Amino acid sequence: MSGTVQRYRESGPGFAEGEVIDRIEAFRRRRPRLREERITLAHGAGGKSSEALVDAVFLEAFRNPELAELGDGAVLSPPGGQRIAVSTDSFVVSPRRFPGGSIGHLAVHGTVNDLAMAGAVPSWLTAAFVLAEGLEVAELKEIVADMAAAAADAGVTIVAGDTKVVPQGAADGLYITTTGIGLVPDGRALSAAAVRPGDRVLLSGFMGDHGTAVMLARGDLAIEADVRSDTASVAGAVADLLAAAPGTRWLRDPTRGGVGTVCNELARAAGLGVVLEEDSLPVRPVVAGACEMLGIDPLYVANEGKFLAVLPPDEVDAGLAALHAHPLGTRAVEIGSVTTEPAGTVVLRTGFGGTRIVDTLVGDPLPRIC
Amino acid sequence: MSGTVQRYRESGPGFAEGEVIDRIEAFRRRRPRLREERITLAHGAGGKSSEALVDAVFLEAFRNPELAELGDGAVLSPPGGQRIAVSTDSFVVSPRRFPGGSIGHLAVHGTVNDLAMAGAVPSWLTAAFVLAEGLEVAELKEIVADMAAAAADAGVTIVAGDTKVVPQGAADGLYITTTGIGLVPDGRALSAAAVRPGDRVLLSGFMGDHGTAVMLARGDLAIEADVRSDTASVAGAVADLLAAAPGTRWLRDPTRGGVGTVCNELARAAGLGVVLEEDSLPVRPVVAGACEMLGIDPLYVANEGKFLAVLPPDEVDAGLAALHAHPLGTRAVEIGSVTTEPAGTVVLRTGFGGTRIVDTLVGDPLPRIC
Repeated sequence: MSGTVQRYRESGPGFAEGEVIDRIEAFRRRRPRLREERITLAHGAGGKSSEALVDAVFLEAFRNPELAELGDGAVLSPPGGQRIAVSTDSFVVSPRRFPGGSIGHLAVHGTVNDLAMAGAVPSWLTAAFVLAEGLEVAELKEIVADMAAAAADAGVTIVAGDTKVVPQGAADGLYITTTGIGLVPDGRALSAAAVRPGDRVLLSGFMGDHGTAVMLARGDLAIEADVRSDTASVAGAVADLLAAAPGTRWLRDPTRGGVGTVCNELARAAGLGVVLEEDSLPVRPVVAGACEMLGIDPLYVANEGKFLAVLPPDEVDAGLAALHAHPLGTRAVEIGSVTTEPAGTVVLRTGFGGTRIVDTLVGDPLPRIC
Repeated sequence: MSGTVQRYRESGPGFAEGEVIDRIEAFRRRRPRLREERITLAHGAGGKSSEALVDAVFLEAFRNPELAELGDGAVLSPPGGQRIAVSTDSFVVSPRRFPGGSIGHLAVHGTVNDLAMAGAVPSWLTAAFVLAEGLEVAELKEIVADMAAAAADAGVTIVAGDTKVVPQGAADGLYITTTGIGLVPDGRALSAAAVRPGDRVLLSGFMGDHGTAVMLARGDLAIEADVRSDTASVAGAVADLLAAAPGTRWLRDPTRGGVGTVCNELARAAGLGVVLEEDSLPVRPVVAGACEMLGIDPLYVANEGKFLAVLPPDEVDAGLAALHAHPLGTRAVEIGSVTTEPAGTVVLRTGFGGTRIVDTLVGDPLPRIC
């Protein structure tokens, strides 16, 4: 639920205005319908139920040219010519601290990364806190210090904030909502509408670390494994990639719903197919093992310091080289490619030569992951 | 906790850079200290405890030139010359619907009004939702429809959003965080540092309606009274005021903590005194009666569709005339004036000729009011 209509309307190379509108309408028709009468955890999981909720409730009410179905940030054009990107996210992760980070890190990285995915240079953040009565001030200070460190690292300034307190029992400790504002360089236009058959799909590193780390940190599973969240600002790595591969078509961070869900969003938004090579999908053995014991496919597990990039084939080598030279991209790989058929669908080519459909996440195997 | 340092640094007429910095430091020294080890409801009430929490936790960690102690919105200067204002607020009001409005109206009006107080023309909003599992979709649709109507009325577009779902018991139904972006016209510089002794304090209408309406709607008091929230976008009324009284020094909406708390913020930020005339304070009889039964002073009760304005004396007549011509300002009045002494203090002159100090709100008689 953010502003890609504007990017659509700017239109990709070779797309006429009418064709763009047709694509949006076709995209809407492919979205699931809301059937439930009450909110369920699945509505927050970033998968099919989330899409249905966004369509039925938010898009229906807020329908306007700036707001669309995909995209992690809206791009706005104030007078004066400098386009700005804006993105917002609430963070409700439980537990609030986990190996590799805390809700404070996530609240900065999550929003900064959304701006980077819109092609923007992250500049400013706001932070709003809902605190439950009884929360320890010492813990709040630690979380806020994590936010300050993450903001400094990402090069953003926290410029405004708000604090509300609710009685014990009315909230589980602490929720943080951040909104980011970034500057969009002239001429930059990342869009699913720019994606072409033959383009390649890159992933900037191992997948599934964050979601697995949080699940294990909950401790309700008798699994001991040294898995750390990958929470990080990817803005620097994205800048390096875009400098080396200026033809990059589209970027997205695979948070809730994971790589599998994000590839489905790409396939449907572009009206094209995505073929993933199972043997190329980078998963740490310890994460693969934990996911197997949890009964979850790492393709659907959240990441907080990774991104997918679609590049034209002739820029893949330069793009990968730039990523490999960045600390957050040393394990970047090509994981698949874009095809004409099956349009709107993601296919996984397995190591044994078979194929299977990768659907959007259904339900919520991992609630409160970010 | 938002960005008036920048307005300070731009400096009011007649203030040298050094004097401005001295004022900020003196202001900081006058702020209360955080003494509690756990969060209490008072930390969310907008009074002394809130100030202490913001100072000790957020300003301490995020200290930067854009973030300061007062102000409802930060003013940012992207390249290109068009300044933008940004403001964020979380809304946790209980009950979610009350006479005169809902959490959906508040979530738009509260943030739009903060932008207007910064002198900005509200343009865009983001909206992030934390939903509790089990919330009825029908209720959510109603609230979102209220947001859409309020946004249309206020002339803002909702451009990005997020939805998280937490398990039942982890949140009380629904929290909404909105962030607003507005455009600041060239040359506009509202600031407490511009306020001068002899300036007049205007209030745009009756005070205490919102907080009283919400308290009564909770129904735990056996009072029946027809009190409606004043929730509304004041951006239009502010525009009319600023057109008629371009020398307006400072604006603020008296939400949490009410008129009394906001006048204290003014007195301390300006390093001047504020004298309020009790007989001039506009309170509806039904609100005065309800507050008396509740044991609460309407000076501390939240408003969501009113604002305070400090004007130079020679623009008061024009400013009041402009407000009286606007539907939201028909009952605007001068409620007091700015004095040299007692610096940093608010004094109420009573109808009987006596005076008493109006302190900042202590504790939280009205939790979850917005």
